[in-house]
Amino acid sequence: MDLKALAAANPDHWAKATAIRALTLDAVAAANSGHSGMPMGMADVATVLFEKHLRFDPTQPKWPDRDRFILSAGHGSMLLYSLLYLTGYEDMTLEEIKNFRQWGSRTAGHPEYGHASGIETTTGPLGQGIANSVGFAMAEEIQRATYGKKVVDHYTYVIAGDGCLMEGVSQEAITLAGRHQLSKLIVLWDNNNITIDGPVTLADRTDQVQRFKSAGWAVLEIDGHDPEAIDAALTQAKKGNKPTMVACKTHIALGHAAQDTSKGHGALTDADQLRAAKEGYGWKTGPFEVPAEVKSAWGAIGARGAETRRAWEERFDTLPRGKRETFNRAYALEVPKKLSAVIKAFKKQTSEAAPKLATRASSEKVLEVINPVMPETVGGSADLTGSNNTKTADLGVFDVDSRAGRYVYWGIREHGMAAAMNGMALHGGMRPYGGTFMCFTDYARPAMRLAALMKIPTVFVMTHDSIGLGEDGPTHQPVEHLAISRATPNTHVFRPADTIETAEAWELALTSKETPSVLSLTRQGLSTLRTEHKTKNLTAQGAYVLADAEGKRQAILMATGSEVEIAMAARDLLQAEGIGTRVVSMPCWELFEEQDEAYRKRVLPGGPVRVAVEAGIRFGWDRWLFGERGKREKSGFVGMHDFGASAPAAKLYEEFGITAEAVAAKAKSLIK
Amino acid sequence: MDLKALAAANPDHWAKATAIRALTLDAVAAANSGHSGMPMGMADVATVLFEKHLRFDPTQPKWPDRDRFILSAGHGSMLLYSLLYLTGYEDMTLEEIKNFRQWGSRTAGHPEYGHASGIETTTGPLGQGIANSVGFAMAEEIQRATYGKKVVDHYTYVIAGDGCLMEGVSQEAITLAGRHQLSKLIVLWDNNNITIDGPVTLADRTDQVQRFKSAGWAVLEIDGHDPEAIDAALTQAKKGNKPTMVACKTHIALGHAAQDTSKGHGALTDADQLRAAKEGYGWKTGPFEVPAEVKSAWGAIGARGAETRRAWEERFDTLPRGKRETFNRAYALEVPKKLSAVIKAFKKQTSEAAPKLATRASSEKVLEVINPVMPETVGGSADLTGSNNTKTADLGVFDVDSRAGRYVYWGIREHGMAAAMNGMALHGGMRPYGGTFMCFTDYARPAMRLAALMKIPTVFVMTHDSIGLGEDGPTHQPVEHLAISRATPNTHVFRPADTIETAEAWELALTSKETPSVLSLTRQGLSTLRTEHKTKNLTAQGAYVLADAEGKRQAILMATGSEVEIAMAARDLLQAEGIGTRVVSMPCWELFEEQDEAYRKRVLPGGPVRVAVEAGIRFGWDRWLFGERGKREKSGFVGMHDFGASAPAAKLYEEFGITAEAVAAKAKSLIK
Repeated sequence: MDLKALAAANPDHWAKATAIRALTLDAVAAANSGHSGMPMGMADVATVLFEKHLRFDPTQPKWPDRDRFILSAGHGSMLLYSLLYLTGYEDMTLEEIKNFRQWGSRTAGHPEYGHASGIETTTGPLGQGIANSVGFAMAEEIQRATYGKKVVDHYTYVIAGDGCLMEGVSQEAITLAGRHQLSKLIVLWDNNNITIDGPVTLADRTDQVQRFKSAGWAVLEIDGHDPEAIDAALTQAKKGNKPTMVACKTHIALGHAAQDTSKGHGALTDADQLRAAKEGYGWKTGPFEVPAEVKSAWGAIGARGAETRRAWEERFDTLPRGKRETFNRAYALEVPKKLSAVIKAFKKQTSEAAPKLATRASSEKVLEVINPVMPETVGGSADLTGSNNTKTADLGVFDVDSRAGRYVYWGIREHGMAAAMNGMALHGGMRPYGGTFMCFTDYARPAMRLAALMKIPTVFVMTHDSIGLGEDGPTHQPVEHLAISRATPNTHVFRPADTIETAEAWELALTSKETPSVLSLTRQGLSTLRTEHKTKNLTAQGAYVLADAEGKRQAILMATGSEVEIAMAARDLLQAEGIGTRVVSMPCWELFEEQDEAYRKRVLPGGPVRVAVEAGIRFGWDRWLFGERGKREKSGFVGMHDFGASAPAAKLYEEFGITAEAVAAKAKSLIK
Repeated sequence: MDLKALAAANPDHWAKATAIRALTLDAVAAANSGHSGMPMGMADVATVLFEKHLRFDPTQPKWPDRDRFILSAGHGSMLLYSLLYLTGYEDMTLEEIKNFRQWGSRTAGHPEYGHASGIETTTGPLGQGIANSVGFAMAEEIQRATYGKKVVDHYTYVIAGDGCLMEGVSQEAITLAGRHQLSKLIVLWDNNNITIDGPVTLADRTDQVQRFKSAGWAVLEIDGHDPEAIDAALTQAKKGNKPTMVACKTHIALGHAAQDTSKGHGALTDADQLRAAKEGYGWKTGPFEVPAEVKSAWGAIGARGAETRRAWEERFDTLPRGKRETFNRAYALEVPKKLSAVIKAFKKQTSEAAPKLATRASSEKVLEVINPVMPETVGGSADLTGSNNTKTADLGVFDVDSRAGRYVYWGIREHGMAAAMNGMALHGGMRPYGGTFMCFTDYARPAMRLAALMKIPTVFVMTHDSIGLGEDGPTHQPVEHLAISRATPNTHVFRPADTIETAEAWELALTSKETPSVLSLTRQGLSTLRTEHKTKNLTAQGAYVLADAEGKRQAILMATGSEVEIAMAARDLLQAEGIGTRVVSMPCWELFEEQDEAYRKRVLPGGPVRVAVEAGIRFGWDRWLFGERGKREKSGFVGMHDFGASAPAAKLYEEFGITAEAVAAKAKSLIK
């Protein structure tokens, strides 16, 4: 590249873009770690985007109608941090830039949601950002249809690299976006032909232009170092009725000795090469120093959004008060006051009617009372609507000609669904939930982990949660998935035992502001066990005494979900023999762990033998079998020890020995 | 559809295809469960494929040079079971068909590898079969280049549905196949426009033809009910130098009242409708009855492969003896005799040299001695070759013009890589291993689970296995992934503490025939702890005493991987204060669990306090802290309690308190 020609053609632009490159080089050199090449290659695109198109106000980073900028290629975090610093986000100080990748700084190796203003989502695991963006764009569509264009009307811009586009989840994302004609979604592909292992062609020769077109996208191709072409492409992309992919031909590590090589992808720390690169740029200031006039030009860019934002506020104020309140409430992740009342009423009714229902069906019944009072919920399923019971009549279907619809047919895209739901939650103003079979937690996991890491309350409705799924067999029967979900930090795993606990779990999932929830629900029918109405949400304690021992307490049976019923039947058998038996329902281990020790010991006192029963593997149960004053010698587990099998559910429970008789026998064998 | 016209146009074909439809209807009705529509829709395609193209011999189902047939749309299992029964696979009796989806039958809800001959892979989780097929086709290319066309020359046929093509992993698969011009891979797309939720268009409007072309495929479009068109397409597909996708326009549940509807996808059990469908087919025999002449026609199809197979055997016998032996040995999953010797020699050398190495680098050194003696290994990495240390000099690179190359640049496709590695292992004759960061176990998980379920010994090389990864931060730092892998049945999770244990882990991974292995390896350098050479593979016991207490044994420190070094340093601190301390290295929990109780108690006797140290979460550790004669009151854990952070590794260990000092302090606090 002839850098001099580039600089001469548009010196103002060049200076601004070079500020990003120089800061990146300096920060990576100081950290002796990081990724220099991507920010250097995409600096021109990002500069034009921020200067001429992106609507944002650094003084109000959470302004709801801002455009969203998502750095899907999260390893290029210095691109984002530079932009935030240069445009004047208060918490992105030069000190933070200097502390790139250091303990306690806001400038983590990859952008972490919540660490600094202006970071719209956590990226780094490739493909996640572009998949999030589908949810961002859907949320915008739904809210625009709901509140009107005066109040909601913004774009979602994504920078994605070759890695993002190679990950399978990107296909799920782009086909969703194409299907739904998310025309306000614009993806800028950093087409630099370099990955870590070498040229992209080593592993991939996909015609990305043709691929995006096949998914229903508009595609533009430009020189990613030509500011006028970038501007024209962005202008063009904002028109039309399709999502747009702009293929930006760039040079990774532009102007550095490592330009156009895979070495350029990583940390460029050689002092001489760094100096040479800056010389080539005509950049004369010291490390981390941005010339005053350049800083000021960037500052002006940052300042230009304030007026637009103020104008928006005025328009927002013209909304009817009820709408404003709902809008603000949803953005604040507050539930409507009515929620608690409708849940309580539902519980009361249910405890009286005591239906026998699969908890997936219970969940639908709960949603029928929740969705009408929470217009911010968005439901969906990965092509298992009738099985996941996620659709209620009032939601309407989200589609090209019904943008206010709140139900999404996600298709067979568990991963894309989970990531897009995260995007909706991150966008704000939405409470997404979506379903698949519990076993396919596996497909959705990368996004489920990020929900936990980002502290966003996405709700994952995972039905058919054990061998109770029956004939579909071991490929579809989760056995380790409760353990997997429980092992993930900051995740509430609810496995309700009946309709009442299901309602309580939903209430907790929706009142959570910082923790995603996994609802583990059965395929098979379960009796209502909580036939005595309590207004209190017992599930909030994580575990509680469902039925206490009559007579001397000799055994405690612990169970979750469909196995609580089995524990109750085992208790009948034991009590019939005069063995005092307590049953503890444990719908949410994490919440039980959060209770004070006194409560935990009241629920699980030392002394009696303990038997846990769960139609999953034992992994993790020792915490409760041995740990809460239990003893190894006096405890046992009834559950799965390996993968399941294909047969009717009842037969499987019998063959795998998960029965009341087995539980009672185990307890008796421990009582000596 | 005018069934009469179809039948009249080609009565012999019609009768054969109808046998599949009728068996499917009967089996699903008997089970009152299953998926009728797909076998009914794809019966014509499958009939032509089996009759005129597929090379197979039911009497020798494992014949190495057979064509592979993969039912990626695994819910259509009755298609496969019908074909196996009709063509005369001995273990697929009519009784099995009648016991579809019942306990103990070979005819599980979805095809389960190992349950019956002719099932090449377990499918059901959508997209897996098509992703496996890439590995099958690569294995064929590598072996053809290695052994010659006389001995290896077969096709891989896949039937995939809309669900397979919507899953992101399918994009990873097809772009890999296109990149590598896997021209012997032929995908038959069941283009029926129906998914569970309704018409495909509800969720997807992808132009699949354009999409496959963008990935470098040849595409043909046919009427999937026209036997001549099917035959012509298959003939055409076998030519050319690209993989081929045949878009077969079909009617789901052909001829049934539910034809062309999402109801037709599921279990069609209504007796009247079943009768009406059979009448429409002109099918007059009772349930499960195939007319003798039709059965005999199918039998002839099954018989036609025997001669081809015998001719192949003759050609195979002309191979030099050494080649034959290697071929047979690799297919039998036997390691070469030399392996044990080179590993022992390596261990001896290493225990003397006692290098300080990251275990990922140790792994490369081990591979340098393994790969030359095991020509069946195929290495690779998901674009992290230099970081995963998976490439050794002798492997060569698998590419279009170097088909014998044994290293695959998988690109940024962890899921596709894992599934394709499974395909290679299933194909036979190959020992695939592949790397990514441990954190991205998340992306690969659906395929990793299937390796465990299928009992195939795929090796997953997962490096950067803790906060020791450092600056890249929490998105890249596994904390729950050891727990996730350990929670999965039939999976060996090795977390070696030094180069010696790494060599032992590799030996165990490669001698395993039925269990996949996860190698959890560090980014950061570790000292050699096993400086005294032992020929015995101590890792095979899962856990062992690395250093015993001097004086009275008051504490046992348990650790894995990078934390064993920390435990050893803690032991020094404790011994210096006169506290007798044992260190137990636990590189593989699963193997330790398999030891007899006496051994386990010798390693972990009751009495001393116990502290476990691992730079991951505690989940699962209670098994060893409390369970093996330990006591809650006398045990503690030093490790992670939440997600990690971005900072240099040493700083993270210090900040998260995973240090020798913390371990020693914890032990002391427990000793009273």
